[in-house]
Amino acid sequence: TSKSTLSYAERARQHDNPIARKLFEIAEAKKSNVVVSADLTTTKELLELADHLGPYIAVLKTHIDIVSDFNKETVFGLKSLSEKHNFLIFEDRKFVDIGNTVQKQYHGGALRISEWAHLVNASILAGDGIVEALAQTGTSDAFEHKGERGLLMLAEMTTRGTFATGAYTKASIESAKKHSSFVIGFISNQALTSIETQIPATHMEDFIVFTTGVNRATKGDPLGQQYQTPEAAIKRGADFIISGRGIYATSDPIQAAKLYQNEGWAAYETRIKN
Amino acid sequence: TSKSTLSYAERARQHDNPIARKLFEIAEAKKSNVVVSADLTTTKELLELADHLGPYIAVLKTHIDIVSDFNKETVFGLKSLSEKHNFLIFEDRKFVDIGNTVQKQYHGGALRISEWAHLVNASILAGDGIVEALAQTGTSDAFEHKGERGLLMLAEMTTRGTFATGAYTKASIESAKKHSSFVIGFISNQALTSIETQIPATHMEDFIVFTTGVNRATKGDPLGQQYQTPEAAIKRGADFIISGRGIYATSDPIQAAKLYQNEGWAAYETRIKN
Ligand SMILES: O=c1cc(CO)n([C@@H]2O[C@H](COP(=O)(O)O)[C@@H](O)[C@H]2O)c(=O)[nH]1
Ligand SMILES: O=c1cc(CO)n([C@@H]2O[C@H](COP(=O)(O)O)[C@@H](O)[C@H]2O)c(=O)[nH]1
Repeated sequence: TSKSTLSYAERARQHDNPIARKLFEIAEAKKSNVVVSADLTTTKELLELADHLGPYIAVLKTHIDIVSDFNKETVFGLKSLSEKHNFLIFEDRKFVDIGNTVQKQYHGGALRISEWAHLVNASILAGDGIVEALAQTGTSDAFEHKGERGLLMLAEMTTRGTFATGAYTKASIESAKKHSSFVIGFISNQALTSIETQIPATHMEDFIVFTTGVNRATKGDPLGQQYQTPEAAIKRGADFIISGRGIYATSDPIQAAKLYQNEGWAAYETRIKN
Repeated sequence: TSKSTLSYAERARQHDNPIARKLFEIAEAKKSNVVVSADLTTTKELLELADHLGPYIAVLKTHIDIVSDFNKETVFGLKSLSEKHNFLIFEDRKFVDIGNTVQKQYHGGALRISEWAHLVNASILAGDGIVEALAQTGTSDAFEHKGERGLLMLAEMTTRGTFATGAYTKASIESAKKHSSFVIGFISNQALTSIETQIPATHMEDFIVFTTGVNRATKGDPLGQQYQTPEAAIKRGADFIISGRGIYATSDPIQAAKLYQNEGWAAYETRIKN
């Protein structure tokens, strides 16, 4: 859980989780640590954005349940574009329920998340059972996509007045350590290094930090969102920066994506030089 | 937020929120405070359960995203059965995101939740912005179902090691008070009376307590769920008891529903006599 000064290439070599390795390899190959939050509400818009921005991003983040005409073509399109442009798909589901329920929400169901999303996230709000439940089925030999899926703990949030702090954040880290065969990183606003937990690192652990609330142009929105710049996020420990409206809601999303890519990459290069 | 000793009929008369009134009227008319958690994974099973148990329940709770063949017929079926048997529908979505995102998840999207679910729930984890965002659109004059929808705050959870406690629970109550035009109650394991918050009650407030983790036969499941009996839950302040596997996973769900209905009602009658 450290603000890593290693390169993505180095981290890819050292990591023992195949999906983490793949993510680092993509970042290195494409020189991008950008995750675009593709919060669009039709299949056409979503797939068009994914196709246009695909070359510049490492990960496409979805809220698949906001897509009004979600259907098989949505899934097929996302999968194809992920291969065409070599990016991972992260469904921002924020699982937060009893273990028995989240297993049904992750596998099958209306949205078939485990079939197409390389990464998902979960909150420790309900306690550790949720992580155990997701890890259990996600790393089971019976699971078709074993080794191709990973979980991020929602360890912090970007919003004003969030309760994802303190003991909650600590427990997210502990849970990640306990289930590191499936948990590959965090959604957090900073490296979580300084936070000491009761569970010691038992092996070479390299959790990946995803930071959301990234926007070059504005400080927040009227509903509680708070922003920082790509550079600031990476300085504080982000390995991947997540931006939605800062990219897709501009007049030229491709230019915006390139800009975030360049700034994010420059900030990363500065960090690994130190 | 008190462990109410008033009858449902009395509370229906006094409440200024139409959907809360409707819920109390249903409970009184059907002599039921049972919410069945219909965690089934096909439309056919879900609608069959709703039709069979409809006469004995006040609310049908769904996890609509676990329904593998979710489609227009699912929604049509739920709506029709809700009218046929006079129960409300509660989609247990546990919204937990920035305001901008939850608005898109609640209205429209793949699951069209605001079109068919009378009640939904949300977590204060991200801060108060989520409640503001949902209340804003849920009580807007532009919203077709204004006055027919309500929000429950996920103030506590049933699971081992949950972080939905302390300051989190307090903030859930404060947020409910602030947005009482839309928030009609809590998911909690007890009446939240004894908890003092900084926001004083500004008017006659009567938040409705829904308690989940209710099961007559067992103490928990292997993934962190913890149970209490219908009677225990109502003694602790539940106005409505939510049970899933305790009802639908038995050999005779109709008999089980009747049993929970009778026990729940008897415990309620005992409580209002005191
Ligand atoms: O704390 C968080 C966590 C997440 C992701 O898990 N998000 C999500 O990032 C995206 C930010 O979008 P924006 O850059 O347009 O504000 C949204 O999809 C929002 O749901 C946040 O905005 N804040
Ligand atoms: O703290 C909670 C909150 C909820 C509802 O918001 N739930 C839900 O109740 C139901 C309990 O099912 P069960 O009676 O079969 O354990 C599940 O749908 C679960 O997701 C819980 O089990 N615990």
